[in-house]
Amino acid sequence: MVGATASRASLDSFIGDGLEAVEQAMRSVTNSQVDVLRDASQHILSAGGKRIRPRLLLLSYRALGGDNFDYAAKPAAAVELMHTASVVHDDINDHGVVRRGRPSVNALWGRTFALLTGDFLFTAVYELMAPYGDFNVALARAATALVEGETLQASAVKNGRFTREAYLRIISLKTAALFRAASEIGAKLAGANINETKILADFGFSIGMAFQIVDDILDIVADEITLGKTSGVDIGQGRGVAVAMQDHNGSARVADPVEAIKRRLLEGDTIDKARARAQVLVENAVAGLDALEDSAAKAELIALAYGVIQRER
Amino acid sequence: MVGATASRASLDSFIGDGLEAVEQAMRSVTNSQVDVLRDASQHILSAGGKRIRPRLLLLSYRALGGDNFDYAAKPAAAVELMHTASVVHDDINDHGVVRRGRPSVNALWGRTFALLTGDFLFTAVYELMAPYGDFNVALARAATALVEGETLQASAVKNGRFTREAYLRIISLKTAALFRAASEIGAKLAGANINETKILADFGFSIGMAFQIVDDILDIVADEITLGKTSGVDIGQGRGVAVAMQDHNGSARVADPVEAIKRRLLEGDTIDKARARAQVLVENAVAGLDALEDSAAKAELIALAYGVIQRER
Repeated sequence: MVGATASRASLDSFIGDGLEAVEQAMRSVTNSQVDVLRDASQHILSAGGKRIRPRLLLLSYRALGGDNFDYAAKPAAAVELMHTASVVHDDINDHGVVRRGRPSVNALWGRTFALLTGDFLFTAVYELMAPYGDFNVALARAATALVEGETLQASAVKNGRFTREAYLRIISLKTAALFRAASEIGAKLAGANINETKILADFGFSIGMAFQIVDDILDIVADEITLGKTSGVDIGQGRGVAVAMQDHNGSARVADPVEAIKRRLLEGDTIDKARARAQVLVENAVAGLDALEDSAAKAELIALAYGVIQRER
Repeated sequence: MVGATASRASLDSFIGDGLEAVEQAMRSVTNSQVDVLRDASQHILSAGGKRIRPRLLLLSYRALGGDNFDYAAKPAAAVELMHTASVVHDDINDHGVVRRGRPSVNALWGRTFALLTGDFLFTAVYELMAPYGDFNVALARAATALVEGETLQASAVKNGRFTREAYLRIISLKTAALFRAASEIGAKLAGANINETKILADFGFSIGMAFQIVDDILDIVADEITLGKTSGVDIGQGRGVAVAMQDHNGSARVADPVEAIKRRLLEGDTIDKARARAQVLVENAVAGLDALEDSAAKAELIALAYGVIQRER
């Protein structure tokens, strides 16, 4: 029991130091000589965000025996910056004006500078990861998948074919691929073997799927202040989990007022079905960790997984 | 003389094979599972373009003794894709509707998909270069510089401070940095020493500066059909070499009709001064190659440098 407490305290300090190093790495690589890029990057980065992806990377690294948080911090920062780049560009395409409880980059600096800030955050990822060779490949693939997922989503909406199958493919690309890269890179940095790496990669993928489903549910049920970003975006655009999980899916009915669609979804069992699906994904993800030795980091990975479906923002 | 002819034929076949491998690498990495990304990428890539950056990389590699065109082709493709990504995003911000003699991605697919196609081309660069370690760092820095240069340009226009100094800083970041990365990576791939690498890097930087100055001159003096892209963009936005080289620079006078500004510039000596500046840059670049052993590749690098100031599109 004393051992468990000590191990828990050691993990807390590892993760605390690791996340601080992640913030430092993100601040440093975005400290551009160009005012707008530096200011807009710091605006979105200092607003916080959940930092779930770097946390996942650090915990995966630790669960497989890694103990040098400095070594893992730059890849963890790169994963978070990749996500941040994509939300800056999303807010252009979706006209999102609130992000992480603040005005979006798009709202404050306008479209041209938001586009360039997103590009800059992408190139910051590239700069951070350039020296990493093999680990870099996993993140590069996830970056491509992310853009492919966003594009499939825009295409599916445009063509009115937002089916269940399309939805699952979209979220696997736009969200779960980056979660998978985070846990996979964490495992590889710790020197994990192929089998252990696959366990962690699968874990990250499943909770990424669950994370996006819950995100889409919150887009419907949560208010904008709790959420810290423009809500109702999915329904307004005829997409998201609710559209995909409706009985007559594929017909987005985007002409309906957002509030009317929301009410209909809240009254039916669409939301419950989506929640159940996220629950199953998380339980499977946790079961997949059975093969790993118990540790404080493993326990925290499990807590992170359940946190994904219990969160309110 | 027979030796020189043989060496020349061998270089032609090396460059021909190398550029074909570059096209192949670009087609392959952009062969996305997502229709829009694949189609829009192939649209802009198959339109051609001058391919001056990959040619510069291959020639630099060859001039320093490299002989495996396959080894150099992927980095050369990455450099060209980086440039292509930036023009796709430029055409969003500048409302460019013609590019490489075809409708721009923005004009054909709309803003959302153009933004995502540009992102996709960026991630394609990242994927291509991920395994390259050290060489990757040079390209990653150039990518960041490129975005910084574009941003400085937009800021300078917005603030009405498009001075000569600002202009030179902008083009060094948005254009010359990528030319430098191309020749530097070519040299490094050939196993060049620090001194040789610096000679090639400086050469690339200078002709990149000259290239952009000539590009900006052509934006004023060439018609759209010869140019293959929307012309008069710089003047319309109160920027470019002519604005920077005017006697009273910094006051963009964007309210003037484009044609009136064009006429005034063509009548004065602004264009001649800009051409003279580009000429000096190229002559200095060529003089810098004196320290290198003569070869068919070196001769072709010199021809490429003069081609930069003699071109009409």
